[in-house]
Amino acid sequence: MLQSHLFTKTRKTPPKDEVSKNAQLLIRAGFIDKLHAGVYSYLPLGLAVLKRIEQVIREELNAVGAQELLMPALQPKEPWVATGRWDALDVLYKVRDSSGKEYALGPTHEEVIVPLVRQFLSSYEDLPFSAYQFQTKFRMELRSKSGILRGREFLMKDQYSFHRDEQDLDTYYEQMQGVYRKIFERVGIGGQTFLTFASGGSFSKYSHEFQTLTDSGEDTIYLCRACRLAVNDEIWPEVGYCPECQKTTLEKKKAIEVGNIFKLGTKYTEPFAVTYKDRAGEDQLVVMGCFGIGLGRVMGAVAEIFSDDAGLVWPAAIAPYDVHLVGLFARADEAVVKRALGVYEQLERAGIRVLSDDRQDVQAGEKLADADLLGIPVRLVVSSKTGERVEWKERTAKKMELLSVQEIIGRFLVTK
Amino acid sequence: MLQSHLFTKTRKTPPKDEVSKNAQLLIRAGFIDKLHAGVYSYLPLGLAVLKRIEQVIREELNAVGAQELLMPALQPKEPWVATGRWDALDVLYKVRDSSGKEYALGPTHEEVIVPLVRQFLSSYEDLPFSAYQFQTKFRMELRSKSGILRGREFLMKDQYSFHRDEQDLDTYYEQMQGVYRKIFERVGIGGQTFLTFASGGSFSKYSHEFQTLTDSGEDTIYLCRACRLAVNDEIWPEVGYCPECQKTTLEKKKAIEVGNIFKLGTKYTEPFAVTYKDRAGEDQLVVMGCFGIGLGRVMGAVAEIFSDDAGLVWPAAIAPYDVHLVGLFARADEAVVKRALGVYEQLERAGIRVLSDDRQDVQAGEKLADADLLGIPVRLVVSSKTGERVEWKERTAKKMELLSVQEIIGRFLVTK
Repeated sequence: MLQSHLFTKTRKTPPKDEVSKNAQLLIRAGFIDKLHAGVYSYLPLGLAVLKRIEQVIREELNAVGAQELLMPALQPKEPWVATGRWDALDVLYKVRDSSGKEYALGPTHEEVIVPLVRQFLSSYEDLPFSAYQFQTKFRMELRSKSGILRGREFLMKDQYSFHRDEQDLDTYYEQMQGVYRKIFERVGIGGQTFLTFASGGSFSKYSHEFQTLTDSGEDTIYLCRACRLAVNDEIWPEVGYCPECQKTTLEKKKAIEVGNIFKLGTKYTEPFAVTYKDRAGEDQLVVMGCFGIGLGRVMGAVAEIFSDDAGLVWPAAIAPYDVHLVGLFARADEAVVKRALGVYEQLERAGIRVLSDDRQDVQAGEKLADADLLGIPVRLVVSSKTGERVEWKERTAKKMELLSVQEIIGRFLVTK
Repeated sequence: MLQSHLFTKTRKTPPKDEVSKNAQLLIRAGFIDKLHAGVYSYLPLGLAVLKRIEQVIREELNAVGAQELLMPALQPKEPWVATGRWDALDVLYKVRDSSGKEYALGPTHEEVIVPLVRQFLSSYEDLPFSAYQFQTKFRMELRSKSGILRGREFLMKDQYSFHRDEQDLDTYYEQMQGVYRKIFERVGIGGQTFLTFASGGSFSKYSHEFQTLTDSGEDTIYLCRACRLAVNDEIWPEVGYCPECQKTTLEKKKAIEVGNIFKLGTKYTEPFAVTYKDRAGEDQLVVMGCFGIGLGRVMGAVAEIFSDDAGLVWPAAIAPYDVHLVGLFARADEAVVKRALGVYEQLERAGIRVLSDDRQDVQAGEKLADADLLGIPVRLVVSSKTGERVEWKERTAKKMELLSVQEIIGRFLVTK
């Protein structure tokens, strides 16, 4: 991508009405735009990050046989009444059409998927399975001051698993903990993300959250670093120690919930009478689990955690581009302009994703500041001083190296 | 994908409340599920088709430099009031939050993107550019009996272009006609899809639709096959002849609008005062075009056009899988079961997308009927009769061939 073609631009100052660090940086860098409180547009650079997070999650879920589908946001009232959540869920947006019929804007999809899978379930041989989607959720949040960490409209991976019995759910639930660890590892926040015990609802004693440490997090957790476990402060008074090593003096930390996993049991299969015939021919209620990851939350957490005074810092796995090629030239430096374009084309041909700052009439200092603000992992500089070589500098490193294009391509072949 | 793992199943009869052929077939085959009138879930097989259509469109738009973004559905009231569409647009769903604030559920995104791009536009050098998204639209349609051809919630590619003047818009508009032809060609409906003159609104005399011939279409067009052009019946009385060859005796046909392109001019840049400084330093209003494709409509049109009495027929470019491998065996036929699994693994390793019907205890006739219903372009059969070879049959052909796995892989290498 040639940066001169990119329709977004960086801004020197954050918008006045934005208090969260993630949104301030992402808006300044042109990754997102605020439409109103808790509702953001993802601009080309921001959408690229979101799509890369999505693809990591998709790969890990497909690898364990989960099946992707896409369910609607505009949901009929009846199933919400059936589960008792039409009145009970205060985040529910309600819509009325011209005939007076009422709908919910889905904040979650149990009320859709449970009646949906019912038609495909008859025998124990149809179980277990798991289905997931990347889908836009709507939640009428009272507070919305955390940028993309807590949105009123946001993209979520929500997933629902269906089992013959609690034992099978337990096995799958354990497996999904591992899948989640791998996902958070791959997107770059594995070190900061901890399995956290939280309140469990009616079916199981605890649910589990994946909490990522960040000072701007809205949650408070009690962390046992040695066991890599935490307890949410909601249940800390009743728990009071690390569930693994029983230590009682845990670290009190701020964190953001990037994912959660929940044993639903028969809470939603019962109101919709979702049963299967077991080996003995007896009807049994299907047992469910659910598993969520907020994509914007992951992106926002990354923006909060890794950024520095100069701007964003993206882990390579979810960066919008692999390298930011910065051409430093005046309009008259035709040789350097041509050289930069040549390097861009060579790298692109090698399958490297390049954002090439080919902008004319922008000062070197401004271009380098923009590169830091955008936070692409590797900055390459082509200037009248670099000759036949290219200056390589990693976003968080001080060291610069002069490399040939072939050496640069070689580094990506090794890491990919 | 092993079919025994797929959570959806085929149905012998269509749902009673569904009158459209596309939805009847897609529901029977387990591609979609109806949540309520005009609102459908896309199940794994259906989502695979939708994603392939999306990817074709994305590739063609990126090739001409359009930039992908993602804008919200939950939109503030104010810009809709500014354009006069808060009251004028009867398909607009309106939502009220607990504080009494009102929002629109976006049926289109001019009211979001125009104020959005304003902040990035200052000079003539910032123009032209074009931005698009794949995003869920909401429209309160009165009629919703056409399956996924006309939804109340549906996935749309909407795209907005921004220009210095009408001349530049005209050039881009011509270019986009070519891009659209290529997209419809690639997804398999090029032969049935015609550029159609339609009413143009305030800015230009005509807009253009891409209409795909199908008896179930809700539109009527007057078609000049020789010129590959049509006129929508809305403006036929005032036009009365082929805009190219002036012939007046055109074919009256039913069709479905799969895409439309529109010169917006300054209709939306004026209320939001979106200007740029021209070379002389004078403020000029930005000129806009917009370009839509309904993804569900394309999928529904394909389902309507190509299907036969036995079921769906997918063009290779958008089929959910490249081949449907059908293993015909009884539970005891271990050699055949193993052989089918081996063929599946060989094909997958070669990068061919395979749906493998490995179901036990399903009769051969039922498996073959399901293969026809699902409509994957190539059916491969492994049975006790096929020995070391595999039976190849294309969905719409009668001819069967016995091929080695290597020959099958070779055929895909040639066509890819």
